[in-house]
Amino acid sequence: MAEIVELLADVVGAGNVLTGDDVSPDYAHDEALTATPSVPLAVVRPGSTEEVAAVLKVADELHLPVTARGSGTGLSGAAISPPDGILVSFERMKAILEIDLDNHVAVVQPGVTLEELNTALAVHGLIYPVFPGESSASLGGNVATNAGGMRAIKYGVTRHHVLGLEAVLANGDVIRTGGKFVKTSTGYDLTQLLVGSEGTLALVTEATLKLHPRLAHAATVLAPFTTLDEVTAAVPRIVASGIGPLILEYVDMITMAAITAHVGLDLGIPEPVRDAALAYLVIVLESAHEARLDDDVASLGELLGELGAMDVYVLPPQAATQLISAREKAFFVAKAHGADDIVDLVVPRAAIPQYMLAVAAVAKEHGALITGCGHVGDGNVHLSVFQPDPEERTEVLRAVFRAGMALGGAISGEHGIGTEKKKYFLELEDPVKLELMRAVKRAFDPNGILGPGNLLD
Amino acid sequence: MAEIVELLADVVGAGNVLTGDDVSPDYAHDEALTATPSVPLAVVRPGSTEEVAAVLKVADELHLPVTARGSGTGLSGAAISPPDGILVSFERMKAILEIDLDNHVAVVQPGVTLEELNTALAVHGLIYPVFPGESSASLGGNVATNAGGMRAIKYGVTRHHVLGLEAVLANGDVIRTGGKFVKTSTGYDLTQLLVGSEGTLALVTEATLKLHPRLAHAATVLAPFTTLDEVTAAVPRIVASGIGPLILEYVDMITMAAITAHVGLDLGIPEPVRDAALAYLVIVLESAHEARLDDDVASLGELLGELGAMDVYVLPPQAATQLISAREKAFFVAKAHGADDIVDLVVPRAAIPQYMLAVAAVAKEHGALITGCGHVGDGNVHLSVFQPDPEERTEVLRAVFRAGMALGGAISGEHGIGTEKKKYFLELEDPVKLELMRAVKRAFDPNGILGPGNLLD
Repeated sequence: MAEIVELLADVVGAGNVLTGDDVSPDYAHDEALTATPSVPLAVVRPGSTEEVAAVLKVADELHLPVTARGSGTGLSGAAISPPDGILVSFERMKAILEIDLDNHVAVVQPGVTLEELNTALAVHGLIYPVFPGESSASLGGNVATNAGGMRAIKYGVTRHHVLGLEAVLANGDVIRTGGKFVKTSTGYDLTQLLVGSEGTLALVTEATLKLHPRLAHAATVLAPFTTLDEVTAAVPRIVASGIGPLILEYVDMITMAAITAHVGLDLGIPEPVRDAALAYLVIVLESAHEARLDDDVASLGELLGELGAMDVYVLPPQAATQLISAREKAFFVAKAHGADDIVDLVVPRAAIPQYMLAVAAVAKEHGALITGCGHVGDGNVHLSVFQPDPEERTEVLRAVFRAGMALGGAISGEHGIGTEKKKYFLELEDPVKLELMRAVKRAFDPNGILGPGNLLD
Repeated sequence: MAEIVELLADVVGAGNVLTGDDVSPDYAHDEALTATPSVPLAVVRPGSTEEVAAVLKVADELHLPVTARGSGTGLSGAAISPPDGILVSFERMKAILEIDLDNHVAVVQPGVTLEELNTALAVHGLIYPVFPGESSASLGGNVATNAGGMRAIKYGVTRHHVLGLEAVLANGDVIRTGGKFVKTSTGYDLTQLLVGSEGTLALVTEATLKLHPRLAHAATVLAPFTTLDEVTAAVPRIVASGIGPLILEYVDMITMAAITAHVGLDLGIPEPVRDAALAYLVIVLESAHEARLDDDVASLGELLGELGAMDVYVLPPQAATQLISAREKAFFVAKAHGADDIVDLVVPRAAIPQYMLAVAAVAKEHGALITGCGHVGDGNVHLSVFQPDPEERTEVLRAVFRAGMALGGAISGEHGIGTEKKKYFLELEDPVKLELMRAVKRAFDPNGILGPGNLLD
């Protein structure tokens, strides 16, 4: 142990190796509701790619498990190190290396947060549009989980914005993938393989990200419906209209009541409407031109009327911001209400009503309460599961995953598998695909030191 | 040989195994200028995924090389089988299995062409927007090469539209990846790994593709500039304006003269302007609203004036269609003029002038003529290389690739490596990355039967 610490201190300096009581409890957890906190053997805080490479060389030679950690806002347990492992915290690697206005890309170190990047971009009229809902999340973590969020319907997810990476392999070799371009057909796409690999293939030390022009005007429209079926039926019609929504969310009545109460938000919806509304559709439009936005909002209002909305509310800017922010924080509302686990399965968006029926049946069968809201534009439904008994809860989750996969879905839309959804993943995923993934893992990390316990065995 | 044919005929029927003189010369080549035609041992035409799986089982057991072929429009040699190999032609697997209007996806077999898909989508007001320039290209081939094209600046490339795949592994196992959703964080992204793998990892038997609303109005603007620097400097300004161009191309004076002459196209540009123009910027805008398009064209015209355009021409629809079509066919113009090879390296778009200076220096040093036009919005520059001596030409290409890679570029933006650019790829790519790719290849195809001679050794 002392020897290991010395070897690591030789690389990053003694002040950047923390052990024992010097390890803050913050390093022991992420935001997964079910994960058990765990204090690593050592927290290492490298300051450069070279230091990351040297740390991994040491770890690989000694076969020490290595876990990467950004801001620790993940929901899968993937940023928690086992007690015998090294936690590589990227808190010192938080430089925005470049904002390239000619190529419209940013080059960042993994510790940069979404908020820091977007603050730096705002003065240039640019935006990194992927927004998973937590602005303190690090871009390294976003890359590792292929973070998504509410704007995926317009902009896609992290995967669609990562043009290139610098990454350190388990043996300390440093590779650079991709570049400042969207097009390439030059060998297997290692960039895309690393995105979403949850720290199990390599440690990302630099990311080249695609930027977009920041559009000045936005409007938020809220439409209550009496059934979820009407909400999901409305989505393809809105998309087909060519209006290009930035956000298309649905919020069920329970979640709407909870999130508005949580932040004391009055949306001005009359009580009779509130009483009859089973699901709300939230639509955000954006535009570079105010007049066009106004026209689009008017067209959207008409369309929503045709599609069966009980009414249409264009929210005042402050209420809109609060609602979207409250929706982004729905997880914390669920947590505050004592949810025992969360699920972020993704299904084809048209299958959402069938999926929710199946979920309701599972809840009833297992005596669990399950509430939901979701990215109705992209089929990613967030469920809060209230069932304190762990064994019963396992049954609930297994049944929910089976139901969603039978509808053509996948276990996680954006949170990742990590340690917390792994047992379901290994049980329910095609064994042929799992074996391919394991072979890829062995190719990158023959000694199996990276992301111990995450994703695969 | 007779035994092999019998085994294959047992799978697909005798009428779907062609050998010897029954093999049309069409099966012996693709569109690569440098590849040597080669007649395979047998052409096999499976009619279903099950048949593809059974063919691969036979081939894997006998260690027979297998090459996948769609329409044969590729430019890398990847669709040419060696003489001892089986060519799997997907000409019978050309069903559009589903146009899903609720999820806005199409599910297609690999033999479906871009033209067939877009014709079927038009009646629904939808479009599959990736357009590499050859409408007879198959979607299987597009997936294999990660085909790009001129609309990448707005819509991205094939990779960004493939949501899921069905694919047959070398041993005959069938896997399904992804699904009808844009978001997933459920294990390594095998979909993205297969896209662009040039038939070396698996044979794709079905693709789920993202669709977009078809916008009714488009306008084409042509702006001559006196220097290439001004053209590339204009690009980020146009993108930052939020105008969202569909196409941003540059065409050099030689190529413009050649492609307009080739189709007898008069763009109405006065001779003094033509004489002084060194490069043309071609911009296509599209919109669902005619009035907005008109406004955008007017704003763009002003902006181009500020950016140093000699003049701005809004082309009449027919001339616009002809110019874009001629630009798409620039390869055939190069071929008709006797080009000896083509290069489609991609660089960061702001590096195009530096790259073209380096290319000019290489051309001068080696006594070659090199002309170019390219996707200035995404840095993908198409060069036609005129140098009949093969050894000298190899020197030219090596020097061009080195120069582009030194500027942060990659060897191929959209054509792929195949057999024809492989020697450069293996020589110039990072050996660490090549070894990772080889390990991935071994994981998918332990006997090395798929895509013989393509991409890797």
